[in-house]
Amino acid sequence: MNHTSTKLHLGAAYYPEHWPEARWPEDIRLMREAGFTVARLGEFAWSSFEPTENEFHFGWLEQAIELLAKNGIASVLGTPTAAPPAWLTQKYPATLAADENGQRYEHGKRCQYCVNSPEYHERSRNIVSQMAEHLGANPNVIGWQIDNEFNTVCYCDTCRAAFQQYLAKKFESLESLNENWATRYWSQSYTSWDQIPIPKAGHNPGLMLAFQQFITQSFKKYQKLQVDLLRARLPENVWITHNFMGWFPTYDHYELSADLDLAAWDWYVGSGQPDYTMTGATHDLVRGFKRRNFWVMETQPGNVNWSTVNNHVNQGGIRAMAWHAVGHGAEALLYWQWRSALNGQEQYHGSLVDQSGQPRPLYAEIAQLGAEFAKVSDLLAGSEIKAKVAILNDYNSRWSLNWQRQHQDFDYVAHLQHYCKPLAARNIPVDIISADEPLHGYRLVIAPSLVILNPERTAHLIEYVKRGGTLILTLRTGMKDANNSLLPLRQPGELTEIANVEVEEYYPLDTPAPLSGRMIGDSFSRLWAERLRILDPELNTLAVANYGQKNGWLDGQIAISYNQHGKGGVYYVGAYLDEKAQAKMLEHICNIRSIRPLMDTPPGVEVCQRVTPQGEKIYLVINHLEVAAKVSLPWAAREHLSGFTGKGALTLAPYGIAILTKDA
Amino acid sequence: MNHTSTKLHLGAAYYPEHWPEARWPEDIRLMREAGFTVARLGEFAWSSFEPTENEFHFGWLEQAIELLAKNGIASVLGTPTAAPPAWLTQKYPATLAADENGQRYEHGKRCQYCVNSPEYHERSRNIVSQMAEHLGANPNVIGWQIDNEFNTVCYCDTCRAAFQQYLAKKFESLESLNENWATRYWSQSYTSWDQIPIPKAGHNPGLMLAFQQFITQSFKKYQKLQVDLLRARLPENVWITHNFMGWFPTYDHYELSADLDLAAWDWYVGSGQPDYTMTGATHDLVRGFKRRNFWVMETQPGNVNWSTVNNHVNQGGIRAMAWHAVGHGAEALLYWQWRSALNGQEQYHGSLVDQSGQPRPLYAEIAQLGAEFAKVSDLLAGSEIKAKVAILNDYNSRWSLNWQRQHQDFDYVAHLQHYCKPLAARNIPVDIISADEPLHGYRLVIAPSLVILNPERTAHLIEYVKRGGTLILTLRTGMKDANNSLLPLRQPGELTEIANVEVEEYYPLDTPAPLSGRMIGDSFSRLWAERLRILDPELNTLAVANYGQKNGWLDGQIAISYNQHGKGGVYYVGAYLDEKAQAKMLEHICNIRSIRPLMDTPPGVEVCQRVTPQGEKIYLVINHLEVAAKVSLPWAAREHLSGFTGKGALTLAPYGIAILTKDA
Amino acid sequence: MNHTSTKLHLGAAYYPEHWPEARWPEDIRLMREAGFTVARLGEFAWSSFEPTENEFHFGWLEQAIELLAKNGIASVLGTPTAAPPAWLTQKYPATLAADENGQRYEHGKRCQYCVNSPEYHERSRNIVSQMAEHLGANPNVIGWQIDNEFNTVCYCDTCRAAFQQYLAKKFESLESLNENWATRYWSQSYTSWDQIPIPKAGHNPGLMLAFQQFITQSFKKYQKLQVDLLRARLPENVWITHNFMGWFPTYDHYELSADLDLAAWDWYVGSGQPDYTMTGATHDLVRGFKRRNFWVMETQPGNVNWSTVNNHVNQGGIRAMAWHAVGHGAEALLYWQWRSALNGQEQYHGSLVDQSGQPRPLYAEIAQLGAEFAKVSDLLAGSEIKAKVAILNDYNSRWSLNWQRQHQDFDYVAHLQHYCKPLAARNIPVDIISADEPLHGYRLVIAPSLVILNPERTAHLIEYVKRGGTLILTLRTGMKDANNSLLPLRQPGELTEIANVEVEEYYPLDTPAPLSGRMIGDSFSRLWAERLRILDPELNTLAVANYGQKNGWLDGQIAISYNQHGKGGVYYVGAYLDEKAQAKMLEHICNIRSIRPLMDTPPGVEVCQRVTPQGEKIYLVINHLEVAAKVSLPWAAREHLSGFTGKGALTLAPYGIAILTKDA
Repeated sequence: MNHTSTKLHLGAAYYPEHWPEARWPEDIRLMREAGFTVARLGEFAWSSFEPTENEFHFGWLEQAIELLAKNGIASVLGTPTAAPPAWLTQKYPATLAADENGQRYEHGKRCQYCVNSPEYHERSRNIVSQMAEHLGANPNVIGWQIDNEFNTVCYCDTCRAAFQQYLAKKFESLESLNENWATRYWSQSYTSWDQIPIPKAGHNPGLMLAFQQFITQSFKKYQKLQVDLLRARLPENVWITHNFMGWFPTYDHYELSADLDLAAWDWYVGSGQPDYTMTGATHDLVRGFKRRNFWVMETQPGNVNWSTVNNHVNQGGIRAMAWHAVGHGAEALLYWQWRSALNGQEQYHGSLVDQSGQPRPLYAEIAQLGAEFAKVSDLLAGSEIKAKVAILNDYNSRWSLNWQRQHQDFDYVAHLQHYCKPLAARNIPVDIISADEPLHGYRLVIAPSLVILNPERTAHLIEYVKRGGTLILTLRTGMKDANNSLLPLRQPGELTEIANVEVEEYYPLDTPAPLSGRMIGDSFSRLWAERLRILDPELNTLAVANYGQKNGWLDGQIAISYNQHGKGGVYYVGAYLDEKAQAKMLEHICNIRSIRPLMDTPPGVEVCQRVTPQGEKIYLVINHLEVAAKVSLPWAAREHLSGFTGKGALTLAPYGIAILTKDA
Repeated sequence: MNHTSTKLHLGAAYYPEHWPEARWPEDIRLMREAGFTVARLGEFAWSSFEPTENEFHFGWLEQAIELLAKNGIASVLGTPTAAPPAWLTQKYPATLAADENGQRYEHGKRCQYCVNSPEYHERSRNIVSQMAEHLGANPNVIGWQIDNEFNTVCYCDTCRAAFQQYLAKKFESLESLNENWATRYWSQSYTSWDQIPIPKAGHNPGLMLAFQQFITQSFKKYQKLQVDLLRARLPENVWITHNFMGWFPTYDHYELSADLDLAAWDWYVGSGQPDYTMTGATHDLVRGFKRRNFWVMETQPGNVNWSTVNNHVNQGGIRAMAWHAVGHGAEALLYWQWRSALNGQEQYHGSLVDQSGQPRPLYAEIAQLGAEFAKVSDLLAGSEIKAKVAILNDYNSRWSLNWQRQHQDFDYVAHLQHYCKPLAARNIPVDIISADEPLHGYRLVIAPSLVILNPERTAHLIEYVKRGGTLILTLRTGMKDANNSLLPLRQPGELTEIANVEVEEYYPLDTPAPLSGRMIGDSFSRLWAERLRILDPELNTLAVANYGQKNGWLDGQIAISYNQHGKGGVYYVGAYLDEKAQAKMLEHICNIRSIRPLMDTPPGVEVCQRVTPQGEKIYLVINHLEVAAKVSLPWAAREHLSGFTGKGALTLAPYGIAILTKDA
Repeated sequence: MNHTSTKLHLGAAYYPEHWPEARWPEDIRLMREAGFTVARLGEFAWSSFEPTENEFHFGWLEQAIELLAKNGIASVLGTPTAAPPAWLTQKYPATLAADENGQRYEHGKRCQYCVNSPEYHERSRNIVSQMAEHLGANPNVIGWQIDNEFNTVCYCDTCRAAFQQYLAKKFESLESLNENWATRYWSQSYTSWDQIPIPKAGHNPGLMLAFQQFITQSFKKYQKLQVDLLRARLPENVWITHNFMGWFPTYDHYELSADLDLAAWDWYVGSGQPDYTMTGATHDLVRGFKRRNFWVMETQPGNVNWSTVNNHVNQGGIRAMAWHAVGHGAEALLYWQWRSALNGQEQYHGSLVDQSGQPRPLYAEIAQLGAEFAKVSDLLAGSEIKAKVAILNDYNSRWSLNWQRQHQDFDYVAHLQHYCKPLAARNIPVDIISADEPLHGYRLVIAPSLVILNPERTAHLIEYVKRGGTLILTLRTGMKDANNSLLPLRQPGELTEIANVEVEEYYPLDTPAPLSGRMIGDSFSRLWAERLRILDPELNTLAVANYGQKNGWLDGQIAISYNQHGKGGVYYVGAYLDEKAQAKMLEHICNIRSIRPLMDTPPGVEVCQRVTPQGEKIYLVINHLEVAAKVSLPWAAREHLSGFTGKGALTLAPYGIAILTKDA
């Protein structure tokens, strides 16, 4: 079963239930003329599907799907469980989530349900079954989205009891739980499962991590409930997804993705203009959820309504964003939304058609995109991203570190992105993947702040290095076990075997610490500094950088080390380098590993690459600047939007795009 | 019935119940010597009036009123309902308001009652009736104040049920409510009135606006309950008022003012020194509540106790504030308060007599004012402010926009004041009035961000222009209807008929957008920019200003337009101009409309004008600076505080005042 | 009974219950080698002592104490009541404290109990009795600590009822309470004790002060319960203490100290590096709790885990901190903690042994200190601090002022420290003592912002001056009585008798006010300015400084005065001087009073002095700088760490220490 679409899709979220039927043809005409190939429908429509309990109406949706199909537009359906109707909440009040103070959420928001509520599970089964029965076999429906942007953590008594059961299953005995959480500390020891609280604000790190994992399992279970009901009624080629929110922290996205066919996410800029050296990493993250191409299920048409300043993306910028997404593996972009409902919380959110029903100025830019997508859809069919660098991401480590920052400005994701940014600026593709994925094929693996290790993970990384891989370990690595307990070892835990250094002490910094080394020149470590000690002096481990004078403890000590091990090698980076030194270090390491840029470009111009099943390389050149830019082509090229061929210098208009292949 | 006082009053809030009777004569002697003509008493004295349920004591107050009267000081009485006694709260706990979390307020604060509580209505009826019976006919009482600074929003179940009933009455059917709030959005649709929540934080804008209107109606009803009880027992010439808080947002002040004889407000500076180009607008606002002169029921004697820095107003500044208020239509100023109670939350608030019972240094300045008021009281008797410019104010628009700012720095009131400030700086009087008031007589009407239109309002504005008026519409105008739903029209809604432009798109700005035009020169729009399109090219609509290069979408587009219509004309200002350009634009428009300054003055010197029933113009010249200032008089003048007459240059001492009439 | 230890102790908090017994010998070996003489144990071990109700285990602790003793390390035991076990909380849920919203605290934090809970009292009696019975007579236990860092204020119904009973006892009648709180204000009058609320956020200052005093009494009573149980079972020379938190605001530390033998505190730096001109004052404060030497029961080994940036103290700085503490009267320093538990909220807190069980880099510095302590312990035995300057501290005044700051930047403690800092910088020892302590022996007494006066306090200060003392009164002094009511007098209340000035008005300042005088030169008052008036012109009261031009009210007025009275004199400082002028003023006054520095040193070098029972003066010279410093010795000296003797210049290494006596 291959769910990868062979088509590059463009579309929008469309809520026909907000509008009189008479308006539908006009909307769909405008979609068709913009080159739309897909629309997403149905999510949030529970009260339209089931206006009173067990009275169902799906005819209106079938009609809309049909009208869309007649205009060449496929449908993706969302299950409507993110927005329960008022009658449901009124009749089953325990389906509402409770906040940290025990207050129930109220009707009329989104995701206000308790994810562990048996009654909510029951009502969800009912509506999803009905929907699947009526629409599962519809030939114009190509995919399904479960719920919408899972996000609400519930603190109700049902959840607390479920959490306690979860713990009983996980630890089997209270002795084991007490041991793993070191509960003799502050007399936390539990003598009965029902004593265990849901942690609020700070608490025992073991308890906190277990609760966060329980949240993951709660969403996973609720999602699976829907996936199973749908799968039983869907044709094999119809996929199921969920629209995630990029770096959203609340659950382990790898766990939830495991039960989906396709990963999708909702991409918003908020205030300001997008920075492609940062946003590309989010696409790479989502591509890593299933290690395959993904959908951008929602994206920003101009502006949003929820940020501090809801400015518009510059003219041309939305088109550049679309190609940037495609360059990182997007198979589809759907704008949210087609047209705002006349009332409701998102009245002022960007859309393609304004309150009067007329296209906004942005519509023309989207229509251009539609035409372009049609032009290169076949060329890109089945193509994928191939990266030689992997960056490891781990939700457990992220939670652990962000709860216990030790420096207010330390943030796990920002630190990970600090490793992505210089590679993005040099047009070096990366994969961002789970820390537990296989690593063969990568020349370089970066494991930023992998604080949590377990025996499998350790073995897996050692194996990678032994077989010839280059591994970068960074500050805070290897301090903890899977229960968020300190390992009884110095950093980087059992990875000292391959790093041949240990961290004698770590230093959160109130002011930067100077450091220098041949690879990076004179620089500074900000936020953090670790003092490394080489263990076995026989191994010729290199001191790549040393600290200058700072607080006495760090003076002259090793900041970065390199150790050859097996056929590979390990860098330990105990410093949080400034941007310039970080770029130098990564350039140096990439050069050593023969990892070359796809193309050399001036700042602001990005090159992405997709490789077809036949091995053809397609280069997407994107000018993210408001001014024209020039790129020297390394080979004679064919440009697929214009059809031009040529060599030498390629001039890109402001926000200009070129889709190149080598001209044979 | 004309309630306008013919006397310029000076006084203070006085709480004799805080002090032994033996002290009263000394306090009243000091008041008399300061030239006081009025005292406000009784508010907050419920526990002194009714120390236990149904046991009443008004004798002490009658005695105080009499002693004041004997010293030439009239009394204004407050009903004491803002501070219920402890026995009441204890016996009727449901009279306490509940906050958003359902927690009841506690005894010992102010305004802690639920405004919809039937029990509180009953207890209020009881105390107000008793008070009216004992004191209503007292010849020394010239006016009454209902409660004090209405402000508490309650979220209790009583309020929720009352809100649902309010909605049932307003919408008649759930179908209508659902339609007007577009509740198919997020499955918000209601199938029963009792499903409707009280909105907390953000919610459906239709629901939010309806709740805010319900709050207005709740206060109006509670106020009316008291007004009716009093009115039945008061002589015809005794007025009833409420002390509002200037730009306080929580209810529609026009609605509450409708049931009062007189508007009054409480004027505090807080930290820093007052800025007369801003404070004058607040006086103008309050004058607009009843479109007649008003009382300053409380004002700051030196300093307050609740701000970040409770600094004193500079020496001379309190006197200047008083004349500034009179220049904008104040008939009375009462300082809050005479002397602080020895304990209680406001111990450190400014007063005229200090804790030791001796006059503070400020007392001498007030006494000077008392003498001056006496001197010109007859001259000013019955005089009023006459303005050629009206600025329209609309609470529904204010709520709507401030809930959905789209730019964090956009604030409805600040934007309105942005139009007041340059006029104030040029000594051009303005009225600030409800957007639904008649407009005849105004040469210029400014309608800042009038986002909500309804057919009557639209017709009324069109009519004004047709008959020869000049109307300035500004950004965000005409997007919504009375239920806070988007109009299915481009901005400015049906006012496009007279503006002959539509807004193609609006742009909240992260950085300023350049614009220029002959009227304003080269300038910037900050926060916001709208892209205008002229509709009927035949009409010679002018592009008054165009944007420069900004984000592509705005480049070269029209920012400000002018369209002649009927005998009048409409400016549409789609930009949020910087201060200099704003001043230029308004100067230009005023010049065209022959709206001239009362007098030309250097910065910091204000000129106000009051016009007597006989048409005599009295000019109040106020130096708001700490240094002396010079004004060129356009005519020979008589100064009424000093008695001097002269012409040419008038030199004002620091914070100096001149009350001028033309010397015939 | 003299509980003063004759030994200078060094040690750490040690929790053997976190570790397998097999590890204990290794830990204790490392302690011994670091020169440790004491360990603190047992606090937080309730669940290890009493894992299920009434089943007790003390054997493990006895074993640990014995092993320590065999290695020359004495034990201090903590009662474990700050961390109740889960079974207790589960069985007696009313033992949990409630926050302001009535929400109960949860298991697994610290100090989550209701200090007034009868059930908690009962459970505490039980565990403390058991502990005392098993361990009270243990010859290796030298002292006991009650609970840990008292801090939690409870708002439950039990506390509210207890508060009402407390008030009934304090005021005897509601008439008296109403009178003292001036409750006619806002109709607050109480007609029944059970109407009185616990104040939340702001409330009547009388009510707020009474509640804060009730909190003090609640902790005092709870502490006494434990003290009495222990005292009955302890040998006479075993002391009882509590570990306070320096300037922690929540209760009156003098009241709690009264029932203890010894004061102790927990000293943490948090972010940044310590500033000895500030931290010394905290030691002086704690020394003043019992007017004798004290223990530092916890202090920071390197870094903490709860601050914004948990940086380490510079190398050498921890040693300097230790000597600084000794120089201010510390008899012992115990690091918190020896080694972190592998899980729990404080995993990342600094320790001496790291997660791997190996000494951290800091260990060597502590071991140096251990050797040094051993070397000078006999020399310092019984020595004390002797100061000629007393600074008066009053919790009631502090609460009163900090609740009603009038200027957001006014803080009672910061203002008090503003008087300490210049004295510390000049090596002039001070005592910080309760405003109600005897004052004989002091040449200078400073009473910063002593807002609350009562007849005894006033008499006591007048007496001090009459007998020859010099008293500095400062802004905000003498406004209130013991119920937080305004005195019916101008400032400084009845102290005007000795100051011969009154405050005509006080001015919180939005911008600084210039002032000048011969003693201080040209300077500025920031935050605050009081306008003084000399009362009896016959008395030759001096105007020490006058204001320049500021706001009119202050222009030319007196800012600082001096009045001779009896054999002494009174300064009234109505300004909040800038740092330079403050230093000048205090230098000037000290010179007049012949209060000389212990030694002249360059900035950053501190000299402290301890005086032995035999009168020998020991000088501790501490270089708090990262660079070397030179001090000119006024006499030939013997240095006790090195054994060297000499005269002339003393060169101190970075963070260097010298322990000097005069070389006879």
